[in-house]
Amino acid sequence: MNAESAKRRAGRKVAARDFTATPRGKARPRSAGPADRQLIADLVAANRVLAREGVLDGWGHVSVRHDQDSSRYLLSRSLAPEFVRPGDILEFDLDNNAVDDRGHGLYTERFLHGEIYKVRPDVVAICHCHAPPVIPFGVIDVPLKPMYHRAAFIALGVPIFEIRDAAGMTDLLIRNPALGAALAKSISDKPAVLMRGHGATVVAPSLPRLVGRSIFLALNATLQAQAMIMTGGGAINYLDPEEARLIEAREGYGLGRAWEAWKRKALKSGGR
Amino acid sequence: MNAESAKRRAGRKVAARDFTATPRGKARPRSAGPADRQLIADLVAANRVLAREGVLDGWGHVSVRHDQDSSRYLLSRSLAPEFVRPGDILEFDLDNNAVDDRGHGLYTERFLHGEIYKVRPDVVAICHCHAPPVIPFGVIDVPLKPMYHRAAFIALGVPIFEIRDAAGMTDLLIRNPALGAALAKSISDKPAVLMRGHGATVVAPSLPRLVGRSIFLALNATLQAQAMIMTGGGAINYLDPEEARLIEAREGYGLGRAWEAWKRKALKSGGR
Amino acid sequence: MNAESAKRRAGRKVAARDFTATPRGKARPRSAGPADRQLIADLVAANRVLAREGVLDGWGHVSVRHDQDSSRYLLSRSLAPEFVRPGDILEFDLDNNAVDDRGHGLYTERFLHGEIYKVRPDVVAICHCHAPPVIPFGVIDVPLKPMYHRAAFIALGVPIFEIRDAAGMTDLLIRNPALGAALAKSISDKPAVLMRGHGATVVAPSLPRLVGRSIFLALNATLQAQAMIMTGGGAINYLDPEEARLIEAREGYGLGRAWEAWKRKALKSGGR
Amino acid sequence: MNAESAKRRAGRKVAARDFTATPRGKARPRSAGPADRQLIADLVAANRVLAREGVLDGWGHVSVRHDQDSSRYLLSRSLAPEFVRPGDILEFDLDNNAVDDRGHGLYTERFLHGEIYKVRPDVVAICHCHAPPVIPFGVIDVPLKPMYHRAAFIALGVPIFEIRDAAGMTDLLIRNPALGAALAKSISDKPAVLMRGHGATVVAPSLPRLVGRSIFLALNATLQAQAMIMTGGGAINYLDPEEARLIEAREGYGLGRAWEAWKRKALKSGGR
Repeated sequence: MNAESAKRRAGRKVAARDFTATPRGKARPRSAGPADRQLIADLVAANRVLAREGVLDGWGHVSVRHDQDSSRYLLSRSLAPEFVRPGDILEFDLDNNAVDDRGHGLYTERFLHGEIYKVRPDVVAICHCHAPPVIPFGVIDVPLKPMYHRAAFIALGVPIFEIRDAAGMTDLLIRNPALGAALAKSISDKPAVLMRGHGATVVAPSLPRLVGRSIFLALNATLQAQAMIMTGGGAINYLDPEEARLIEAREGYGLGRAWEAWKRKALKSGGR
Repeated sequence: MNAESAKRRAGRKVAARDFTATPRGKARPRSAGPADRQLIADLVAANRVLAREGVLDGWGHVSVRHDQDSSRYLLSRSLAPEFVRPGDILEFDLDNNAVDDRGHGLYTERFLHGEIYKVRPDVVAICHCHAPPVIPFGVIDVPLKPMYHRAAFIALGVPIFEIRDAAGMTDLLIRNPALGAALAKSISDKPAVLMRGHGATVVAPSLPRLVGRSIFLALNATLQAQAMIMTGGGAINYLDPEEARLIEAREGYGLGRAWEAWKRKALKSGGR
Repeated sequence: MNAESAKRRAGRKVAARDFTATPRGKARPRSAGPADRQLIADLVAANRVLAREGVLDGWGHVSVRHDQDSSRYLLSRSLAPEFVRPGDILEFDLDNNAVDDRGHGLYTERFLHGEIYKVRPDVVAICHCHAPPVIPFGVIDVPLKPMYHRAAFIALGVPIFEIRDAAGMTDLLIRNPALGAALAKSISDKPAVLMRGHGATVVAPSLPRLVGRSIFLALNATLQAQAMIMTGGGAINYLDPEEARLIEAREGYGLGRAWEAWKRKALKSGGR
Repeated sequence: MNAESAKRRAGRKVAARDFTATPRGKARPRSAGPADRQLIADLVAANRVLAREGVLDGWGHVSVRHDQDSSRYLLSRSLAPEFVRPGDILEFDLDNNAVDDRGHGLYTERFLHGEIYKVRPDVVAICHCHAPPVIPFGVIDVPLKPMYHRAAFIALGVPIFEIRDAAGMTDLLIRNPALGAALAKSISDKPAVLMRGHGATVVAPSLPRLVGRSIFLALNATLQAQAMIMTGGGAINYLDPEEARLIEAREGYGLGRAWEAWKRKALKSGGR
């Protein structure tokens, strides 16, 4: 107990230091030039789809790597995702500095985007969310497992990020590079990470796959909870890792159909 | 059992007396003058947002303290919250008398507003609701605990108000000053109180925070129930009180983004 | 087991006989004259509200006693309730014969309405539904109990109708007077009855109270299930019968506000 | 364990062979001529209703047998079901070759349709879905049972298709005739089959009954789960097989009313 409280006190110090180290107001990085218009349209669509499907609340955000420069990414100014439009998209370097913030506020937790892009060259798109069904799995000792083919990526592993291990007592936000790097370390080479007492961060090699993974991470959580409760902790026949590998191997297979439908509904409704 | 039934009989008498003591038809208090138009607009928005998000049914209500006089508060005439408009807002003194009821019916339970404002100078806004997910937590012996950062305020404590202790057998409504005072005593210095067999009352230092607290009180209840059921009563890693304190310390931090989004959706839809 | 199967065979015979006894094509009863227009408007509203709130699916129905003659009741022609309009309302006698069916099909289960009106002079309105949350409570050995004030009427008792006891093996529909009478006997003097493997029938002294009871019967089922699961069968602090009596005693108290809101939403949307 | 892994290796080989055997690009079969316009309209409606009711996500599909030739069936080109229109419907032979694909992509899993139509002359319509509530029942050892009359067909039996038994490790899709035949063998003479880790396939003698069965398969799963959890595995009073037989015997009885309502809502909303 003494060791525990000592560790916590230490953590508190780290957290306090981190809070003052937020690197706002740095020199502007150079732009990689205009991004592909379709990529921006898809980023807007991803924001709106995930808001409409209940994955993103007013605070979540989605980014995509710049198509002209892998050391830049695109992310909305601070705005509820269901209202994001192309004109709201800003360009950032991997240290999470805006090329031009046009006087807008920025997402406090943008640090998680740059820090993951730095160490994960395979990642093209990132979603940070507080989808309700994943919250319970972040605070109990039962790992998420793939219930069905739409959530096969879960077989690759979904670790839990315990921010107390990285920084002791905090307000749980990824509000600086150190916390972003700690989260990036936690997600490792996996497709998603649950954040204890906070939410989840999902990564993917494309925006459509990111949207699919984010939706089915949440839905799988609901369905796994249901199966667990029905069996009272008894046997559940999850996907075999080899089945999951074969499903993941057909990248984006059939996803196009759902992606077009999600976009069509989300853009038509102009928000949810 | 005899003691119990004696206590109940006594309670019944108190309740009966209280019911006849309802102070309707008192002399009109003096107005504090027109309230800020934006405050009224935000009060209307809070009503509509909480109706749209499923926190308020046709009977809940929301009040805010008058910006010109802390001994006055603003509350709609008796009306389902999703249809409240600026013209429906009335001014009350802390004894819950309308400055001018314009011939409208008043919420029977308005007494809870004034009695809480009297003893809680820190409280600027109050919501009384029957949000379904909180009802079970009012009738079982398991306290609400904060599952994640959006519900950090729960760490400050959410007591249960047992109206039987205050007045024995009643119809459960806070229909007079004595019951309002009993509820105010029960909520003490906490951000919310569950009302056994009835609903909940939430307080906050601003309307946006009230809306956030009311929404996440209900969502946290759903998520905590889920975690409790999955673990069969096993360990759940709730927010640490110090984490909750740090989250609460950044008052309204980031809330503006969600508040604008909630308002935009609720006002666009003209009801839910 | 032999006794059981003998009883079932007997029941089957009764059922078979009953099926041929359906009194269609009888002589037309005389009309009690035009019903109050507002009553018809409220009956239409009740249909639409209960469809919109998820209590009625495409097969449920709602009736009200004729305001000019207590031996007549009003019920839509066979139509999904969310599309009922004033012109669809027909007049029936208590033997469930239409005064004038205008060539329309009739609800097969209209017999439950007349048979209940016959023996329950206090009943003014009846709803037959298949609201999903009540189905589980019809097939397990746990009685519904009132979780909160909105569902206080449950304290008066909600029996389960086991059609096997009345008629052995059937297709579960109340398709003749004998089954209607059996259901009426089962509901006795209570406000509602669950129908095993089928749904529920709710009665009330007015249409607004019927709508309230039907909505909160379903919601209470959801909330009671939640509490039961969380406590693993432990103690739940239900409403005291005396509390329920006091709540029921203020007939319709405050219901007007919600009734107006339910109607406004349901009629605006033109179906759900 | 060795036996198990040997079996899996064998399965993998079958799967690999099957994947290359996909009979795309075959000679076009001859058309049976134009199908009935109302049948096509109903097929479009079935797609939209099941999307709107949450049974079909962006990947499910619905087919119906051609009214002029029982060796042909109708199915949309590859398209999310909520956006299917009459012009999207294509004609297939029972080997799942399109009479004229008009250059459109086809559903990968169309093989399940033809293979079931081949061996089930009683089947007129087929739905393949991933309705969330049925997923848990595909991965636990508890059979679906009929909770109430709307789901009586479940009493006829709902087996689970374990694709590992048919083809070892796969990506779970029914992507060739052999897998389609294995699924058809698994469904046998039953009204539906759960597909482990994947979804379900439902069959019926008409489109309205198919829609009803698909909706109530999912809803029954939700309600059965609820009852199972509430009783902690205790007794549940399911429909008696004879009750289910009597309900099924009145084919489509009363279904017309709900079918018209489902269509009206789904077609009005132009997608969900």
